[in-house]
Formats: sequence, structure tokens, C-alpha cells
Amino acid sequence: MVAVDILKFPVSSPADTSPLEKLSVAGYDASQILAVIGKTEGNGCVNDFSRTLAAVVWESKIPKNAVTIFSGGTEGVLCPHVTFIVRSHDDAPTGLSAVVGHTKALAPDQLGTPEHAGEVAQTVTSLVKGLGVSPEQVQLVLIKCPLLTSERLETIRAQGKQPITNDTYESMAKSRYASAVGIAAALEEIAQTQVEEALKTEQPWSARASCSSGAELDDCHVFVLASDIKGLAQGHLRAVSKPMKDAIDAGVIIELLEQIKKEGGQVVQVFAKAEADPRGKIRGWRHTMNTDSDLHSTRHARAAVGGLIAGLVGNTQVYVSGGAEGQGPSGGGSLCIVYRVP
Amino acid sequence: MVAVDILKFPVSSPADTSPLEKLSVAGYDASQILAVIGKTEGNGCVNDFSRTLAAVVWESKIPKNAVTIFSGGTEGVLCPHVTFIVRSHDDAPTGLSAVVGHTKALAPDQLGTPEHAGEVAQTVTSLVKGLGVSPEQVQLVLIKCPLLTSERLETIRAQGKQPITNDTYESMAKSRYASAVGIAAALEEIAQTQVEEALKTEQPWSARASCSSGAELDDCHVFVLASDIKGLAQGHLRAVSKPMKDAIDAGVIIELLEQIKKEGGQVVQVFAKAEADPRGKIRGWRHTMNTDSDLHSTRHARAAVGGLIAGLVGNTQVYVSGGAEGQGPSGGGSLCIVYRVP
Amino acid sequence: MVAVDILKFPVSSPADTSPLEKLSVAGYDASQILAVIGKTEGNGCVNDFSRTLAAVVWESKIPKNAVTIFSGGTEGVLCPHVTFIVRSHDDAPTGLSAVVGHTKALAPDQLGTPEHAGEVAQTVTSLVKGLGVSPEQVQLVLIKCPLLTSERLETIRAQGKQPITNDTYESMAKSRYASAVGIAAALEEIAQTQVEEALKTEQPWSARASCSSGAELDDCHVFVLASDIKGLAQGHLRAVSKPMKDAIDAGVIIELLEQIKKEGGQVVQVFAKAEADPRGKIRGWRHTMNTDSDLHSTRHARAAVGGLIAGLVGNTQVYVSGGAEGQGPSGGGSLCIVYRVP
Amino acid sequence: MVAVDILKFPVSSPADTSPLEKLSVAGYDASQILAVIGKTEGNGCVNDFSRTLAAVVWESKIPKNAVTIFSGGTEGVLCPHVTFIVRSHDDAPTGLSAVVGHTKALAPDQLGTPEHAGEVAQTVTSLVKGLGVSPEQVQLVLIKCPLLTSERLETIRAQGKQPITNDTYESMAKSRYASAVGIAAALEEIAQTQVEEALKTEQPWSARASCSSGAELDDCHVFVLASDIKGLAQGHLRAVSKPMKDAIDAGVIIELLEQIKKEGGQVVQVFAKAEADPRGKIRGWRHTMNTDSDLHSTRHARAAVGGLIAGLVGNTQVYVSGGAEGQGPSGGGSLCIVYRVP
Repeated sequence: MVAVDILKFPVSSPADTSPLEKLSVAGYDASQILAVIGKTEGNGCVNDFSRTLAAVVWESKIPKNAVTIFSGGTEGVLCPHVTFIVRSHDDAPTGLSAVVGHTKALAPDQLGTPEHAGEVAQTVTSLVKGLGVSPEQVQLVLIKCPLLTSERLETIRAQGKQPITNDTYESMAKSRYASAVGIAAALEEIAQTQVEEALKTEQPWSARASCSSGAELDDCHVFVLASDIKGLAQGHLRAVSKPMKDAIDAGVIIELLEQIKKEGGQVVQVFAKAEADPRGKIRGWRHTMNTDSDLHSTRHARAAVGGLIAGLVGNTQVYVSGGAEGQGPSGGGSLCIVYRVP
Repeated sequence: MVAVDILKFPVSSPADTSPLEKLSVAGYDASQILAVIGKTEGNGCVNDFSRTLAAVVWESKIPKNAVTIFSGGTEGVLCPHVTFIVRSHDDAPTGLSAVVGHTKALAPDQLGTPEHAGEVAQTVTSLVKGLGVSPEQVQLVLIKCPLLTSERLETIRAQGKQPITNDTYESMAKSRYASAVGIAAALEEIAQTQVEEALKTEQPWSARASCSSGAELDDCHVFVLASDIKGLAQGHLRAVSKPMKDAIDAGVIIELLEQIKKEGGQVVQVFAKAEADPRGKIRGWRHTMNTDSDLHSTRHARAAVGGLIAGLVGNTQVYVSGGAEGQGPSGGGSLCIVYRVP
Repeated sequence: MVAVDILKFPVSSPADTSPLEKLSVAGYDASQILAVIGKTEGNGCVNDFSRTLAAVVWESKIPKNAVTIFSGGTEGVLCPHVTFIVRSHDDAPTGLSAVVGHTKALAPDQLGTPEHAGEVAQTVTSLVKGLGVSPEQVQLVLIKCPLLTSERLETIRAQGKQPITNDTYESMAKSRYASAVGIAAALEEIAQTQVEEALKTEQPWSARASCSSGAELDDCHVFVLASDIKGLAQGHLRAVSKPMKDAIDAGVIIELLEQIKKEGGQVVQVFAKAEADPRGKIRGWRHTMNTDSDLHSTRHARAAVGGLIAGLVGNTQVYVSGGAEGQGPSGGGSLCIVYRVP
Repeated sequence: MVAVDILKFPVSSPADTSPLEKLSVAGYDASQILAVIGKTEGNGCVNDFSRTLAAVVWESKIPKNAVTIFSGGTEGVLCPHVTFIVRSHDDAPTGLSAVVGHTKALAPDQLGTPEHAGEVAQTVTSLVKGLGVSPEQVQLVLIKCPLLTSERLETIRAQGKQPITNDTYESMAKSRYASAVGIAAALEEIAQTQVEEALKTEQPWSARASCSSGAELDDCHVFVLASDIKGLAQGHLRAVSKPMKDAIDAGVIIELLEQIKKEGGQVVQVFAKAEADPRGKIRGWRHTMNTDSDLHSTRHARAAVGGLIAGLVGNTQVYVSGGAEGQGPSGGGSLCIVYRVP
């Protein structure tokens, strides 16, 4: 059980590590950092070097066993920022507990396959156990996972193997889905035996998974957040999660915000996934995110869902990540709100 | 006084005129059309040929004195659609009245200048008068105005004159602002004598202007919508307007929606303008819409504000247009909701 | 045998049909038009409405049995223009002969399949026969073929069938490849029996195919151009073709231009296909066209190859089309030059 | 006089510093590096973090007084790579000499102004003098200069000052032009007294300037390359320069290549600038680079001119940079070829 606090700060560029000073002012030392979770201002797709830049500048400044998870894309109103997950002082209970880890490195040809999902499932299972919570207490599993670049595709072909896809952008989706299925298995939302089938049908999903792909790593960075929302928790922090049914599901956001309000709480951070409904429609009305060849659908989705969430919480420093394959119902996305209670 | 009804239908492409059949099923004839106001799925910028395509296919199917106003850009969740403004049967009062018209053609070098604003002011003033309403009863003035293409820039230079800007994309903003200032003058939100000064300081704005630029025309298409919101109106339709203060101003949308709910009303259509705050920040938090060289800020703004509005009204067929220079306060945008009462 | 002349004119927008007047000045009547082949200034991808706009405005102005082939994308230096293929006066021999036609409409689920290729093969074979030339005299087969939109994908799924791909942009490539294989079979570059296998291995290619996809049609528009390059031809026009080996194959262009120069010829038009090498490298050096998530690879390829060809022929009104799957060797593209001899 | 060698190597990403190992294999030590000049694979515009990433990873690995110049954008066929300028062993003459330096930091409101140009002029003049060559022996002055981000714009406004432009993308052009004018003055292509006037008329240009803007610095990085092309030079390297008249000026490239061939030379590297003709036409034919709101004109220009140059030299590792304001004639761009003689 690792009790954690959570703080967020805006950044002036992906290379900006000045939030470390603000963290210090807030009374925390860099050595207490478990995770740096950031939104950087690139395109959030294959050639998003804002993520790599952030990873490069941050990784030298945080503990070796801490993880970075940078999600690209601050379309629309979103503000580039970092969220710190830090150990509480003297491990005093805060109401939130967290743990971080890595899978082993995935070979390029494993990306998006049952091996990938299995590796994630095993790592998350072991982290949850180590945290000493039950799967249903976990409110969020955040994963940064690899993608296939042209070079990695060539490596696979040179070995006479088949990549999961020849399209670098599509490899991001395949990687996210395999990670989400691994999380679903670890959180017992699906059975371990369903993993292989899931990767074929692409139907099963986790309500608490949030996965983001990047070229800047070859393993998966994993962050697990748990909250005892039953009210027994000590401390001043809580997390609650419930997926959005579609990209305009203001209803579920308002529902959670009202519940938080009833508890006298204040929103600290929102972690949401967004996607263009693959059927090309939202509640029966056509959208154009899947036929816009100038702008990838993940960029559209972040902008739209980011606008909705930022409007409802009155804050643009929210973590909205694009591409919700297996992370919430199709066309919707997982949603987790961390809040402070009196 | 022309009493009007309002109907909206999705389109399958910018070339889709099948909503005419649905209009007919709803009991209206094409000859009753005053205006076709559409959202088309292009980039909403200089080279948006979806607007031109829609204009070409629609203009042969509607009365000569009707106008088309196509606004490009259905980023995020937005659904391409058309809104018909039609004369009511036998001119029976509906609660809404409307009138349409054109300015004279603007010479390329007049675009964005006091002449442009003056021409708009004169046309709108005359239309409002003809409608028989007072300026404060006007809830929305929608204008489609020209922009400068490379060819028009060359024409200006060949005449030894100076264009308002050499940047084709920026010319859209200049055109929208001059149109908005003209509306503000006509609606007595600013004095006629302030027009010239306004174009210098770029400060004054109208709360009920909605302007959109396009390469497909060289005059301005004007649509004026009035509603007697004092409750004296007969008929089942109402319009109400109040600008958004910034791009995440969910508050004002919720306020209007609650007012409508109190009246037992149901939203028919929303007309909103959106823009990237030119100061680079929203409520003090940095946004990246003005430094994203891959994606123009108007596309970002439409996606974000479109996501917020569609979420709150539960409908993606809303008219959200990008570039709100002088159309609502800086960083915000005008907002008009048309609704049906029992 | 239909003897044809060829003329090209710039356009000021996709809606510009004023070249008809120039055609008239050049002594030709619209009734002599066999084909209007144009480059329009959209993105050349799924949501390129510049193509549809051009098709709409042109199709009402040309003979019923003439075809339009609009290829989107004039990236870089390329000039939007139209090329007319017109019957010569009194069918006087010109050195070039041509014929146009259509396949039957393809069902959405047939796109990219052996049925699609077979349909093309049959149509081209029959057109070549009708033209009275041998397959090896054919210098160019230009095809405009359909793609899968979100709506067409839904139609397929609603029928319980599988589309060739779920990605609208990728469907363009699948459609081009099936068309190219059909051409290869008709020109006897591959055996008819190899068609099905070709669509699996995606290896075989035609040296004289040029295929372009669009949402604006559901059949294939076909244009066949033949030239007797053996020197026996009467008339003042010739066509020669030889594929580019890669996207920087200046050598083959220079070789053809020198051959033309030797004959005292002058280039009238160039028809070229361009693509990003799918292996991610050109002559061993990495390119970034397949990992650029802001800009589709076909746009990159048109810009680069267009720059090379326009530079070498000293003219930017050239037909360079993106996506050369099966149209020339992998990473290269077919190339056909039409020229005038004394 | 600093005799230099020049070597180039491809990179696998902007973070790839493995060329250092290849440099070592080639017999050079990192301590001999004067400049690292790279093409990185971002958009080359305001939010190109590939440049910043490259600067971050390289600056810790090269001597303190060496400079980095990273130009973003490898559109089309271009290969991301780095070019090393290294001191020759024991300062043995190579035929090429070079020197690097910095201007002082420019305040945001100085960007694009006569102060900016003056500061560049002074720095380049002093570097040329220090190099011990005459201005006409200088074949290339390469500059990396700052741009205005939203934050820098806010800083200026907060001080009650006026930025040169409110548009972050346009600030790149303004910065390049002021740098180019400074170079022109230092190389005596224009008089020092013409600087202020030049910034107003935007007419004068330098034939040997190559300037590139970036958010990653606030001073200008300067690299000066001289060659004694009169044949008196010892050593095996030469540089020659002559600007392209327009973006399809294959003629001048072929002319230089033939001259090099006559000397038995082999091309080592090409440094070229490219731009969209601001008049909207090339040799009278319309181009669409200035009206494409999806893709900035500098990206178009790099792709097209990169395709032409790479085709003619048969190598995609060439330095083609976009935005040639004042760097060669309007619509064209400066061009410098470094080659090896027997």
C-alpha cells in the first residue's frame, strides 16, 4: 500500500521541467515522485516528438523506478501540463494508493498480439497484488505502450515475420487495444482465457483502462491507481470512475460531478479517453472524424471530448487521451475523476 | 414581418440535396425557403471546396431571392447538416421572424475595410427595418462574407493597391471582423461613427453577430432572425442569445438551457461562434491553438466548442462556426438558441 | 480507331469551366470531348471535395459518353489544370488514338477484390479491342475508381459482409491496386489467371496503369491511350511510357526527354504516378512519408515527384497522381509522356 | 582560417546521436566539431519539437563553442540526417574554411526589426573577418534564428510594446528575412545603410543566405562557409553557390552539377532554400501553396524543391530548408553545393 498525493502544473513547452520547483514549493521532493503523467502539445500520433522530448528531459530528473507517461495532443482548449503522483509524507494515508511498473520490452512483432496483452495482464496483476488492493478498488490503470515505426516494421519483415499491421498510425490502435485487454484481464473484467479471443473480435473492453502509444519506448509503462470509495478511506483524496458511453456523454460527467459535489469534494484531475465512433455515427448522426484525411480521428476526438470535459469542470488542465479501443465502450471512453474531500 | 419556421436535416455529403425531400414530407415547398444554412465537412478555411460544392448544388434548387450560408468545418463530433429557414404557411405567426438579403459585391481591396463594414451596416439596418422589428429584438445576424484568394490578392496588387493582408487565411478573420462591426453598428451595439475606429482597435464586438468567410462569393449573404422573447409572441418558436465569455463557458449554455427548460421548451438549433483566445490563454491556462502549425486555430475551436455544445444539448447537428472576431467577447463567441415551446 | 488531339489549360478553381472557351478558341467543340482529365487542388484523399465539385460542374457540359477523371492534389509547385482529350477534326490521324468507357457499378464490398480487378480487366480488354490496337501499343490506361466512405462501410457491415479494410484512406489504395491489376491483365502484363493471386501478394504491377480513387463515383471511369511509337504513325502526336524505378528516378525522365528531343519533339503532357516507398526507404535512405501523421504519404509523394517532373519539363501543369500501388514498381510509378513532333 | 571537413550521416530519429560513432570511425573526434547541421522530421513550423529534441540531445555532446542548426521538415523524399562540420586534422587545408558564432540574445520585440538585422550583420561581418576571407569568398551563411511563440507575444504585449506580427507562423518569416538582410549587409550584397529600408520594402536579398527559425533558441546561431573557388585552393573540397530563380529552376542545379562534373568532382552536400512564390504563380502558372489551409507553404516548398534536388543529385540526404524570404530572389532560393575533387 503506497499512499500518494497528486498535484498538477502547467508547462510552457514539452521541455519545461520547472514544475519540479513548484512541487518543491508544495513541500515534495523529486525523490518522492512515482509517476509524471503529462499532456504534451504534439499531434499525439506516430511522429509526435513532443512526447519524446518530454521523456528525455524528465527521465533524468526523477527516481529510476518512477515512470513517465506522456500523452500527446492538447487539441482545442486543452492546456499542456504534468500531473505528479508522489508518495505521501511518511506514507500517511491519503485515500489514494498507487504503484508503478514496467512490462518487459516487447519485440516489434509482439505488438498488438496476445503476448502483448498477456504481458500487460501479468504485470498489472502483480502490481495490484503488490499494492494490496482488490481489482475492484482499482479506479485507473494508465499505460504508455509502444507503436510500430517504419524501422520497426522493416525489422519485423527482415526476420520473415508479419507485423500486426503495415500502417504506423494503425499500430497505435492495435497497441492500445492489446494493452486494454491485458488490463481487463488483470482487473477481472474479462477472464484470462478470453484474451486471445478478445484480440480477434476486438469487442471486450475495460472500464478503467487508459492506454496511450508512443515511439519513445519499447516496453509498457504502467500506473495503477486505487481508491477505497466505500467511505472507509482515511485522507482527503478520492478517485471515482465510470465510462462515457459516447463522445457527447455529458450525462455521466455531470453525474460524477454531482456525486463529488454532494461529498463536498473538489475536482483535482480528470483522466479520460476519447475516440471517434468506429461506426461513423454518434447517436445516429454522422460524424466526419473517420473520413478526414487531413486530421487523424484521435486529434478530433481529443479536441471534442476535451472541450466538453474542460467546460464542465471549468479547467483545461485535464488528461484527455485519444484512441479508446477497449478502454470503455465503443465510441465512448474510460473516465476517472480524482477529487479532494474536506 | 415574415414569420418563419426552422427545420434541420443531416446530409450525407456537401453535394446531398435530399433534405429537400424531407422538407417536402414535413409539409414545406422549396419555394418557401428563405435560407439554407449549412455546416459542411471541409476544413472551414481558404481552400474549403465543400462550401463551394454545397453552394453550387443548392443554389439551383432554391428561390432566386433565398440565400445560402455554408460554414465549413464539422470537426470532432459535429454532424454535417442543413438548416432550412422557411416562410410559415399563410404567414401564420410562429414566434420567429426572419429576412434575408445581400450586400453589393465588395471589391477585393475593400474587404476588411470600413467600406465593407459600412456596406454591411447599411444592408442589415435596412433589413431590420423591413422586418419591422427593433434592433434589440434581433437575436442573430448570420453573414457569409468573402475572403482573399491568391488571385484576388494579385488583382489588388495589379491595380497598385494594398490588400488588408497578404495572408489568405488571415483575410478570413479580417472579413469576419468587418462584417461583425457592421452588424454591431446596425444593431446599435456601437455607434455608426465608431466603425472606422473599431477596425483599427479591433476591440468592439456584437453579441448577436455570426460571420463566416468563404471563397465562393464576392458579396455578403445576410440572414436576420428576430424573436419577441418578452413572451408576447404568438406561435411555438423562440430564439434567445447571450454570448459565451470564453471557449469553456459551459455556464452560459447551461443558463440558457435551464431557462428554456423552465418554459417547457425544446432546443431546435444552436448557432454558436468559437475562437482560440488570441492571448494564448483561457482563464490563465495556456492553450496551443495559436502555435499549432499543422491545424488552424479555427478548426481547433470548432472541435472544442462543438464538443461542449453537442454534449450539453445532446445533439451533434449544431451550427458551430470558427473565428469569432467581433462576434462576442475576445476568446468567447456569440450564442443563439432557437427552441420550440408547447 | 479514334484519333485524338490533346490540349491542356489551367483552371482558377475546381469550379472553373472557362477552359471550354479556350478549347473553342483552339477550334474544338465541346461535343468532340472524349475525356476531361484534371488535377484539382484538394487533399487528394477521402474528403477531397474539390474532385466532386469539378465532376459536378463539368459533367453537365460534356457529351454523355465522355468521362471525367479528376485527381486531387496539386501539392508543391503543381498547377491545377484540365487536359482535354478530343476527337480530331474529321477523324484525321494524329498519331494518338484513345477510347473511354465505364465499368459497371461496383458494390461497396467488391471494392479492392478480384471482382473489381476482373471487371476492370474485362472493360479495358474490350476498349482496347474496340480501339483496334494491340495491348503493347497502349501507352496509358487511366482509371478513376471508387473508395469506401464511412457510409459505404456501414452499408457493407449492415449486410453482414466484410469490407476489404475498415480504414477509409486505405480503401483508396486497395481500390487503386485492384484497378491496376485489372489493367495489367488486360494489357497482358500478367496472365488473367494471376489476378486473384496478385490481390493477395500485392506484388505484380502494370507499367502503364494510372489509377486514382474518389468518393464521387461508384463505377470506374476508364481512359485508354495508344500511340504507334514505331514511327509508322501519321500525325504530329506521340506517347511514350516507361516507369520510374523510385521517387527520385530523374534518370528515366531525362532519358525519355532526350529521346523526345532527338525526334525534335516538344512535351505536351506528362502522366505520372508517385508513391512513398512502402519499405520506408529510398535507395537505402529513410524517408518519413509513412510516419507523418499530419500529412498522408500520397500528398508527400505528389509534392516531391511533382517538383522533380515540373523542374525537368519546365512546366507545372503536369498530371502527377499519388498512390502508385501496382502502377509501376514498388516505390516508383508509371510515367507516360505525350509529345508533339514536327 | 579554420580548415574544415564535412561529413553527413542519416539519423533514425531526432534523438539519434549515433552519427557520433560514425564520425569516430571516420577518424574524427567530437572535440573537432564546429557545427552540427541537421534536418529533422517535424513540420518545420512553430510547434516543431523535433528541432528542440535534436538540440537537447546534441548540445550535451559537442564542444561548448560549437553550434547546432536544426532545420525542421523532411517532406517528400528527404532523409533526416546530420551534417558535421569538423576542423581538419592538424588544420591541414581542405579547400573549405568555416567559422561559427552567436549573436547576442534578441528581445522578443526586436525579432524581425532593424536591430535584429543589424545584430546579424555585425556578427557575420566579424566572423568573416576572423576567418580571414573576403566577403565574396563566402559561399554560405547559415543561420538559425528565433520565432515568436504565444508566450513571447504575451511578454511583448505585457510590456506595452508591439510585436512585428501577432501570427506565430508569420513571425518565422519575419525572423528569416531580418537575418537574411543582416547577411546581405555583411557580405556587401547591400549597403549597411539599406538595412532599415530593406525591412520595409522586403525586396533586397542575399544570394548566399540560408536562414531557418525555431522556438528552441533566443539568439541566432551562425555558420559561415568559405571556399576559394578560383582554383588556388589546396585540399579536396570546394563549395559553389548560385541561387535558384524559382522553385522549378532545374537549370541552375544542372549547370552547377555539370561544372562540378567537369572538375571531376562529386557532390558531398547541397544546401538549398525553397519557398512558395508569394505572387501565387510560378512562371505564370498558379500554384496552391498559399491557399492551402491544411498545409503551410513552407512544407509544400520543401517537398517540391527537395524532390527536384534529390532527383538530380541522386541523394535524399540534402539540406533543403523552407521559407526563402531574402535568401535568393522572390520565389526562388539560395543554393550552395559542397563537393569533393580528386
